Amino acid sequence: MVRILGIDPGSRCTGFGIIDWQGSEPFYVASGRITTLAGDELAGRIGVIVEHIGEIIDVYRPQQAAVEQVFVNANPAATLMLGQARGAAVAALVLRGLPVYEYTALQVKQSVVGRGKAAKAQVQHMVVRMLSLSATPQADAADGLAVALTHALRFHGLAGRLGGLAIRGGRLSHTS
Amino acid sequence: MVRILGIDPGSRCTGFGIIDWQGSEPFYVASGRITTLAGDELAGRIGVIVEHIGEIIDVYRPQQAAVEQVFVNANPAATLMLGQARGAAVAALVLRGLPVYEYTALQVKQSVVGRGKAAKAQVQHMVVRMLSLSATPQADAADGLAVALTHALRFHGLAGRLGGLAIRGGRLSHTS
Repeated sequence: MVRILGIDPGSRCTGFGIIDWQGSEPFYVASGRITTLAGDELAGRIGVIVEHIGEIIDVYRPQQAAVEQVFVNANPAATLMLGQARGAAVAALVLRGLPVYEYTALQVKQSVVGRGKAAKAQVQHMVVRMLSLSATPQADAADGLAVALTHALRFHGLAGRLGGLAIRGGRLSHTS
Repeated sequence: MVRILGIDPGSRCTGFGIIDWQGSEPFYVASGRITTLAGDELAGRIGVIVEHIGEIIDVYRPQQAAVEQVFVNANPAATLMLGQARGAAVAALVLRGLPVYEYTALQVKQSVVGRGKAAKAQVQHMVVRMLSLSATPQADAADGLAVALTHALRFHGLAGRLGGLAIRGGRLSHTS
């Protein structure tokens, strides 16, 4: 069994999701989002992110972390803020000694939905199905779970789950 | 006496400088730069920044931190990396409980050189003069010291040092 913490950093909200990967099956552990105050200064926002991620690690004790590679947009100020939030999140993971794996949004959608052009609602839908949830998690929390699932499938293999399929170099291919 | 840690974050190198502000005079304590490996993955780079800043704080025990507001350029990937490095640096400061103050590059140049359009060499030159250094520090280290000096002058006042001048709202103005 391996416990995975998935993080989807954002300039305002950072989504997180924790799953257990056991016998080629993912199991839901926890999820949520960390919200920073828009009016707060940088140190305050970064403090919120770092301290909450530290608490999550202390409570749930994940063994691996997966972080979504954030979308770089045309607005430099927004990109900088996103970078700062992401840097703080990765700092919190590294300080707790967690190995950190990175996945692009494309990889997350391909792994969870099966194609890179999937809408947010489809990601949420597949997260609910794969983890047999009784309700749809909030969008940021679902993104955190989706990154954790992506890591589980790509790193620990999904051969058992998808019946003879394994991901190789980002593509699905038959194993035998 | 107050000990100030100045940080100038960069995507490859993070400059730092530590000064003591005592009796309206700045005194040099230490400076240097933290270099991350270009080929290293994000977690490795962020680990280097966070751990080194943590060590610097443990060794020199500054009471306040000042961070330069990074230059946002047109290259989104570079801006993102800069943001990540800056977020990690601020995370390290916040985790050690240091109050963090931010200054723009313009404020640093105005405070240290006297005008916002100063060249890097002029900043280095003034850092050497203000701290009575016997040699010119490396550029990133000088930038770290310049940020620390900016905080000392703007936050703790420079009336004593510049003979009747005080910074108000980012501009120099006569006090009496």
